[in-house]
Amino acid sequence: DSDLKIFTLNSNVALAQEIADVVGVDLGKSSVTRFSDGEIQINIEESIRGCDVYVIQSTSGPVNEHLMELLIMIDALKRASAKTINIVMPYYGYARQDRKARAREPITAKLVANLLETAGSTRVINLDLHAPQIQGFFDIPIDHLMGVPILGDYFQKKNLKDIVIVSPDHGGVTRARKLADKLKAPIAIIDKRRPKPNVVEVMNIVGNVEGKTAILIDDIIDTAGTITLAANALVENGALEVYACCTHPVLSGPAIERIQNSKIKELVVTNSIAISEDKKIDKLIELSVAPLIGEAIIRVHEKQSVSTLFD
Amino acid sequence: DSDLKIFTLNSNVALAQEIADVVGVDLGKSSVTRFSDGEIQINIEESIRGCDVYVIQSTSGPVNEHLMELLIMIDALKRASAKTINIVMPYYGYARQDRKARAREPITAKLVANLLETAGSTRVINLDLHAPQIQGFFDIPIDHLMGVPILGDYFQKKNLKDIVIVSPDHGGVTRARKLADKLKAPIAIIDKRRPKPNVVEVMNIVGNVEGKTAILIDDIIDTAGTITLAANALVENGALEVYACCTHPVLSGPAIERIQNSKIKELVVTNSIAISEDKKIDKLIELSVAPLIGEAIIRVHEKQSVSTLFD
Ligand SMILES: Nc1ncnc2c1ncn2[C@@H]1O[C@H](COP(=O)(O)O)[C@@H](O)[C@H]1O
Ligand SMILES: Nc1ncnc2c1ncn2[C@@H]1O[C@H](COP(=O)(O)O)[C@@H](O)[C@H]1O
Repeated sequence: DSDLKIFTLNSNVALAQEIADVVGVDLGKSSVTRFSDGEIQINIEESIRGCDVYVIQSTSGPVNEHLMELLIMIDALKRASAKTINIVMPYYGYARQDRKARAREPITAKLVANLLETAGSTRVINLDLHAPQIQGFFDIPIDHLMGVPILGDYFQKKNLKDIVIVSPDHGGVTRARKLADKLKAPIAIIDKRRPKPNVVEVMNIVGNVEGKTAILIDDIIDTAGTITLAANALVENGALEVYACCTHPVLSGPAIERIQNSKIKELVVTNSIAISEDKKIDKLIELSVAPLIGEAIIRVHEKQSVSTLFD
Repeated sequence: DSDLKIFTLNSNVALAQEIADVVGVDLGKSSVTRFSDGEIQINIEESIRGCDVYVIQSTSGPVNEHLMELLIMIDALKRASAKTINIVMPYYGYARQDRKARAREPITAKLVANLLETAGSTRVINLDLHAPQIQGFFDIPIDHLMGVPILGDYFQKKNLKDIVIVSPDHGGVTRARKLADKLKAPIAIIDKRRPKPNVVEVMNIVGNVEGKTAILIDDIIDTAGTITLAANALVENGALEVYACCTHPVLSGPAIERIQNSKIKELVVTNSIAISEDKKIDKLIELSVAPLIGEAIIRVHEKQSVSTLFD
């Protein structure tokens, strides 16, 4: 069959190297640098003619730089006669702009899908999309991997007693249910409500957390406002300890300070987004998605189903 | 007929305001900001349903930020039911990556054209494209404006005696010829040649510059290496004074220092790219392209030819 090659761009080289190790290949030789004026310069330093190419790139911040690196790489691979161009985006930037919530808003998540296809990608592999509907933004095959089993395994090994899985908002209840199934635990929901306009939100908790160990779960933790307020509310309502977890640690602005000062005992995340050294506080536990993504790449290449990866 | 609206993004707000003044409209109400994680947030604050919309944005540095602002704005305008979406890009970023010069290079200038069309633009207005062939990268109408008449007018008013127009390389001879026609002057060419690999280039001058006032012309001045070396070669070959001009002042890296320390008496540029205050040295003369672009917008809107703008 055709050769399998894995290339990395600049967003998460360590993860790409781990994935290549799982698959059992060397990373493809290439460099992605900048011209003096800041334009992206890509050199692919080995032939990829007729190959099945996998490009590893999270469109985490700086999102516009990382997205343009990806689009230009796809263009170069297409013109260099790659057989297939498979984009592995563990984190999908702009995923939260997935609908018109107000008049005249863009739907940037759909724009990104269109741009990836226009550039020439033939398949996309994603992890925990902010909304599963984003799969439908593509007209090429998409494999959608799940982070919950990885997070669940971690908590299973910890062997915590009397736990409750908590969704920090209404949108995340399905995700909380999945983790609860895996850990055989009940769920609770933080039910935020603004009684009147311009009045502070009330944090009501639906479900029983008193005397329990709470595990908050979200897909993205960005400024960490939601999750740290949720942790406080849980403690006020009698939770003994609060853990938090998410797939995508965006951690922008005041996030680290908020987490450090919060009631959260441990924040468990994956390496879908590279975390800079200055953000690696003791409370932060990083789990690798490389075994999951590596296995998915092997299966796609061998034309096997990836759906059984979620058992 | 349909309403004409002009919106600006962040690359060159001053130019956009000048263009709106020439056209006789207010700039459309919108804001282009960043979320905490660096993702672009666009708000269009007035209805544009059924309107002919013109968006002013040079994809100058930071090029990837400015290009993504443009693509997301086009997406928002399209979904808000604009009748036509006309992209005014006085400077076209990535224009120099317009062919495969080496194996496995991307053709990013073509990728950019594809991205603009995919996002939903219906027409593009450009100024002095690095290669006129880039017009053919688009399948939508493109109006290609020329900077030479603006630069020529400036030198005409200066009334310099015994001038020669000089192209700093072989690629720019056609442009030098156009300026020479306007100023009724002869041309010369800097003929760079590397006698052997790993030996310094020889700067030979084809044409007579001795005892003359030389005017160097290029489309882009980026790091200013080429143009300052050319100025030195002209003085060494007997030129009395050296002026330089270009349409697009990219001026990255060592450019300003090189120009300051060079034999160039004046560098005449247009405002196709906004120049930051710290780069505005005394030698630098900025000419506005707003009258040209404003007139082009009026003519496009009134369905008149823009070609007579170049007489
Ligand atoms: N990068 C971002 N940071 C914060 N909010 C965003 C971002 N992108 C989109 N949004 C907003 O987040 C909302 C969607 O989030 P959600 O309700 O969790 O799906 C929309 O109202 C968006 O305008
Ligand atoms: N932003 C840039 N800065 C410097 N060189 C570039 C840039 N973009 C492309 N190039 C290179 O410039 C060459 C084209 O310039 P030219 O020969 O003047 O058309 C190609 O070899 C490109 O690889």
